[in-house]
Amino acid sequence: MAQTGEKRKRETEEENGAEGGTIAAHPLSGFELKSVLRDSAREKTIFLHGQVPEDAVVILEKIPFQADAVFNLLKNEPKLKLQLKNDIYGVYHLSPPPELNEIKTTVICPATEKHIKKYLQQEIYLINETEEDYKAITLPFIETQSFSVQWVYNILEKKAESDRIVYENPDSVNGFVLIPDFKWNQKQVEDLYLIGICHQRGIRSLRDLTSDHLTLLKNIFQEGKEAILKRYGIHENKLRIYLHYQPSYYHLHVHFTALGHEAPGCSVERAHLLSDVIQNIESNPNYYQTRTLTYVLREDEVLLKKFRESGMC
Amino acid sequence: MAQTGEKRKRETEEENGAEGGTIAAHPLSGFELKSVLRDSAREKTIFLHGQVPEDAVVILEKIPFQADAVFNLLKNEPKLKLQLKNDIYGVYHLSPPPELNEIKTTVICPATEKHIKKYLQQEIYLINETEEDYKAITLPFIETQSFSVQWVYNILEKKAESDRIVYENPDSVNGFVLIPDFKWNQKQVEDLYLIGICHQRGIRSLRDLTSDHLTLLKNIFQEGKEAILKRYGIHENKLRIYLHYQPSYYHLHVHFTALGHEAPGCSVERAHLLSDVIQNIESNPNYYQTRTLTYVLREDEVLLKKFRESGMC
Repeated sequence: MAQTGEKRKRETEEENGAEGGTIAAHPLSGFELKSVLRDSAREKTIFLHGQVPEDAVVILEKIPFQADAVFNLLKNEPKLKLQLKNDIYGVYHLSPPPELNEIKTTVICPATEKHIKKYLQQEIYLINETEEDYKAITLPFIETQSFSVQWVYNILEKKAESDRIVYENPDSVNGFVLIPDFKWNQKQVEDLYLIGICHQRGIRSLRDLTSDHLTLLKNIFQEGKEAILKRYGIHENKLRIYLHYQPSYYHLHVHFTALGHEAPGCSVERAHLLSDVIQNIESNPNYYQTRTLTYVLREDEVLLKKFRESGMC
Repeated sequence: MAQTGEKRKRETEEENGAEGGTIAAHPLSGFELKSVLRDSAREKTIFLHGQVPEDAVVILEKIPFQADAVFNLLKNEPKLKLQLKNDIYGVYHLSPPPELNEIKTTVICPATEKHIKKYLQQEIYLINETEEDYKAITLPFIETQSFSVQWVYNILEKKAESDRIVYENPDSVNGFVLIPDFKWNQKQVEDLYLIGICHQRGIRSLRDLTSDHLTLLKNIFQEGKEAILKRYGIHENKLRIYLHYQPSYYHLHVHFTALGHEAPGCSVERAHLLSDVIQNIESNPNYYQTRTLTYVLREDEVLLKKFRESGMC
């Protein structure tokens, strides 16, 4: 849900994608590397822009370990090349057999400029948005960009995805719909990810929240936790419940993720715990209107351009 | 720095470790798997407890991609096994040559109970610590555990690591020392990680901060940013500056990390942006004494046991 309409569409297509079949020509025939778009040493994933000769994005990702295969490997005394030995600690290089080596390879071809940009590691910048910045830069940006949230309205009106709804409080002012996020395949609770979307329209983000919204926020917090316990057996002390600022779409929604799951966007420069939000508004009804809020913008984001034009960053 | 004395010692030993040499016996001879301690699909790392026959911890980690090797691989039309094809998207399995396949293998043997516990994926729980919980449970815990912060005092008194200090404001009340964290090898700024440690003793954590500490906090914020710009050329809009609650040691310190680096402990349930902390105290001097603070505790932490004994979780 925390995705643009385009991205959502794409993932649905993928689910229905044709599997198996044969390859007419080698998909990487004549591959020429243009650039490394992104390289994650931590995740053992690399994103490349190449030409075959059409533009192509190629994503290579090492597959995770499987415990059985690893056990079979280790009990057969694999060749180890010593790198470092000190007391009880030894570090070795091990060359595993092919079945432990597969690389998941995704090829997008022909790739448009948009595809290439999507995977390009963008420069990122920290923004300290004051009350004045919000009024002068961010709010006009949100209003003029007219982001479509039609897909949100479709969910709220049961015109789409109604079979996916986990829980609903139908109150038009203080109610919400709880629905699995598209990033979650719902096959295991380890990476549980649901979204609570409020029925009330016109609450764009954290910046709009005042004491008028406390009942709504408390309903989402309490009823969301209860619904997740009932449906998935996950207790509230295993849940991270938060809002994003900036959000990816400007209709108020709350993220519920498994605490053990490092979901994207749960770091301190984007996430705001709903329990903190409620406390802050209770002690100061205009906390989120008056406070300087800190967040990250990518080089290609229009809002960053607006801040730069205003000389604010 | 955000590490226990024991862990710090260990890493220093490793740096001085003997390299090269030969293996007397196969370090995994007769390996029997006892359990999988942790398995990170995202990071392609697996932690095992085995017996050879002594207890051993074995850590396997796939090596990151290297752009050159990947380019050589792709231009030679490697064998691709089609998994899914839909429009411009194709997913394949690729079996790479051995040089792309190495697994970094760390063996700790004989391993003590403590080693095994260290790598065991612990159950984690969200704690909502009220003002009363802090006074009744957390503060007595901190006071009775008498965590040693002698290594911190050694730094502040120049008895250790004085050559590593990047910046110092020597004022005993409002001054601090800025020093690279041990997690950072200082070889590239992409994962820059420094710690600002205040000279003043007795400030245990965020919970102790009031308007009395605003000058100190602002000094750390401003002078820390300036020192990092001067030494490393990294602008403040590329820095994440925050405190941990709970911290890993109870002498006030502030983390400075590169914004693009997903440092451990920067998620919303542990990190508190220093800019937010300053604002919150400015608007309410007792914000951090009175507020319910949310954080995560692991199954093996004594503080969790204290909360359970008090019936608070």
